[in-house]
Amino acid sequence: MEEIEKVLSFIIEIEKLKDVHRKTKPVGLERFENSAEHSWHVCLSAMMLKDFANEPINIDRVIKMLLIHDLGEIDVGDTIIYASETEQLKSAEAEGIARILSILPSGKSDEFVELWCEFEAGETSDARYAKAIDRVPPLLHNLHGNGHSWRTHGVTQEQVLGLNSRIEQGSSELWQVIRKQLEAAFEQGILNKDL
Amino acid sequence: MEEIEKVLSFIIEIEKLKDVHRKTKPVGLERFENSAEHSWHVCLSAMMLKDFANEPINIDRVIKMLLIHDLGEIDVGDTIIYASETEQLKSAEAEGIARILSILPSGKSDEFVELWCEFEAGETSDARYAKAIDRVPPLLHNLHGNGHSWRTHGVTQEQVLGLNSRIEQGSSELWQVIRKQLEAAFEQGILNKDL
Repeated sequence: MEEIEKVLSFIIEIEKLKDVHRKTKPVGLERFENSAEHSWHVCLSAMMLKDFANEPINIDRVIKMLLIHDLGEIDVGDTIIYASETEQLKSAEAEGIARILSILPSGKSDEFVELWCEFEAGETSDARYAKAIDRVPPLLHNLHGNGHSWRTHGVTQEQVLGLNSRIEQGSSELWQVIRKQLEAAFEQGILNKDL
Repeated sequence: MEEIEKVLSFIIEIEKLKDVHRKTKPVGLERFENSAEHSWHVCLSAMMLKDFANEPINIDRVIKMLLIHDLGEIDVGDTIIYASETEQLKSAEAEGIARILSILPSGKSDEFVELWCEFEAGETSDARYAKAIDRVPPLLHNLHGNGHSWRTHGVTQEQVLGLNSRIEQGSSELWQVIRKQLEAAFEQGILNKDL
């Protein structure tokens, strides 16, 4: 009984992720996305793109990783990836995820702390694929939303191509398709100031 | 390549679930929840409560079910469960899910249409557990939010206890804990008009 009460407290605590605002707006919406709905979106994206992964992956592990990957933001907020992933920020996020998972009954959190660390390190095939897919939705938001977040944050074509090329590490076929869409959008002036 | 483009179209189409508003407000927030962030929340809830399921379940299948369970709402919207689950509504939702999944490359949608039907029918142990957990977050929203949605929709104590007792079919231990919390809240007057 006490264990269930602890899980219910955890379920209430993670509500806060619904109030962490990201830097892009979902296609067709005038508001910024929150990290909870992003987490759902990226899980479904991973599930539907799994056959295009470069390496054999365990999609069930990938989905679990992606369900929890942003929980640390409850304590530190969301930061734009182009602003660089600093050591300080990562360590604050690690503290955040440890705090939040510690609400769970004893012994239940270790698996997820490890999964989060694996995701962050990005050195296994599951983590490489998960990190690749995590880039896709915000990129589509910009591609189908007049580059709104790139423009606001002064992100250049080179930065867009450079940072998102990590998609290639998870799925080179996917990167090929997206790179082509990006280049077409650049050609049509998506990042030109006078558009 | 064409297959990937189709999946990307699907990923953009399902953004619309972020604009389907539900009837409860997340704990601590003044706005209504949307069905995308709810889907994420219920997946994590299922993952963390899995050890309390009545029957052996495959949590990976449960999570997949819950990731897609509300996609049909893109076409029909969300309706409060107390307003009864009509045949007409269910069939419109079934059409919706079929339309949305048909955006995927050919052969990729069948698995998910079947999974959705299994969830809706609620006759397997995975579906029973998934449907039980789907009730938990909105119930917590009301319990920790002064019964706001119950009050707005004139839901009685008997209706709350009656409809949510389906939690028992997925996890009787969980229902025991929640029932106790509900009864305590009723005793403290959560549904009294003059509170």
